[in-house]
Amino acid sequence: MLDETGLRIGAPIARPGKVVCIGLNYQDHAEESGADTPAEPVVFMKASNTVVGPFDEVLIPRNSTKTDWEVELAVVIGRTARYLESHEAALDCVAGYAISNDVSEREFQLERGGQWDKGKSCETFNPLGPWLVTADEVADPQRLGLRLWVNGESRQDGDTKNMIFDVAEIVRYLSWFMVLEPGDLINTGTPAGVALGGRPYLREGDVMELEIDGLGRQRQTVGQA
Amino acid sequence: MLDETGLRIGAPIARPGKVVCIGLNYQDHAEESGADTPAEPVVFMKASNTVVGPFDEVLIPRNSTKTDWEVELAVVIGRTARYLESHEAALDCVAGYAISNDVSEREFQLERGGQWDKGKSCETFNPLGPWLVTADEVADPQRLGLRLWVNGESRQDGDTKNMIFDVAEIVRYLSWFMVLEPGDLINTGTPAGVALGGRPYLREGDVMELEIDGLGRQRQTVGQA
Repeated sequence: MLDETGLRIGAPIARPGKVVCIGLNYQDHAEESGADTPAEPVVFMKASNTVVGPFDEVLIPRNSTKTDWEVELAVVIGRTARYLESHEAALDCVAGYAISNDVSEREFQLERGGQWDKGKSCETFNPLGPWLVTADEVADPQRLGLRLWVNGESRQDGDTKNMIFDVAEIVRYLSWFMVLEPGDLINTGTPAGVALGGRPYLREGDVMELEIDGLGRQRQTVGQA
Repeated sequence: MLDETGLRIGAPIARPGKVVCIGLNYQDHAEESGADTPAEPVVFMKASNTVVGPFDEVLIPRNSTKTDWEVELAVVIGRTARYLESHEAALDCVAGYAISNDVSEREFQLERGGQWDKGKSCETFNPLGPWLVTADEVADPQRLGLRLWVNGESRQDGDTKNMIFDVAEIVRYLSWFMVLEPGDLINTGTPAGVALGGRPYLREGDVMELEIDGLGRQRQTVGQA
């Protein structure tokens, strides 16, 4: 998709080494999903080739009736993280932040047997950007408003202060289960307001807009695969 | 780890674009895991930076008491696969086959809240190789014996004919949920005989040996992270 100047803006990290996601990391989203508050971070993964530019088209997969949105604070890793002992060490491994749309197919994720990954890795399912804002430019990653609209109507309006596990804890925690490397992407969870919580799922022609304070704005038109 | 000639053999695909795994794909393993027979493939993912050479050391993660083995037929993708209609088209997308050890930490996977990925992505958790045997050299991927020993004692002794979903169906099925690309790796599931089924978990100094008919042999010593 071209932006208003006629240029395509790609994702700031076109092909992360891996995309790790934290599930149910806002209390209000856990509630709307009918899930318990997690005692420790819920971890799943997305295929790296889901990443597209912030203004690219998002495709509803074939056979899908439950394609959903999720505005999330994305963390980009800048330094190898392995068995980190402190939150300070964890934040030292963060290169910067961006907006991620963790697009999800809820039937594939929840009703087709097994693990969530099946509904998270479809083509175009991770618009990223427009910018990678370096960590030194973000005064406090836990004080960022994050918002999403569908066809101009507000759907999500949260704040990263309401994360159950904050960025430092997520990076520290993950480093005990896998080696995080420069260019890896972490989607840190979404606040309430997704379709799964009782709103209409995406349809062809819908327009999603996403915004996080200081990280810019995304806009995707929904197409059909 | 050096082999008998003093050289390290790396994995034939050092860093796949993604590693997709099929869970519970042999009836006897589903039974030993206390799981129902899946009605359609169970899909989860492993971080790509788990891949190591076939003779490299496998590390027990810190805080782990349940590190386990899984001999599996690995499929390497050679052609982009997207919404494939037939099993013939699916097999045309397969570049070749290799041995994979889908090393798993069962407490992290099953007892720490949420999705399996948490116990599948630890450092060194995917020995691959020694060879990538091209598809034309494998007469029938569904007639391959696969075996694993720990310290010389037989633990797994299965045959790919007992897969619930065969290679062609796995590739076709996955292509409806994600875009498979050249260099992607699919671990197609493990037969019975893992530690989870009632055997001692791995300990430092243990030696795993793995073999699949026509695909060579692996050997890993177990170390401590």
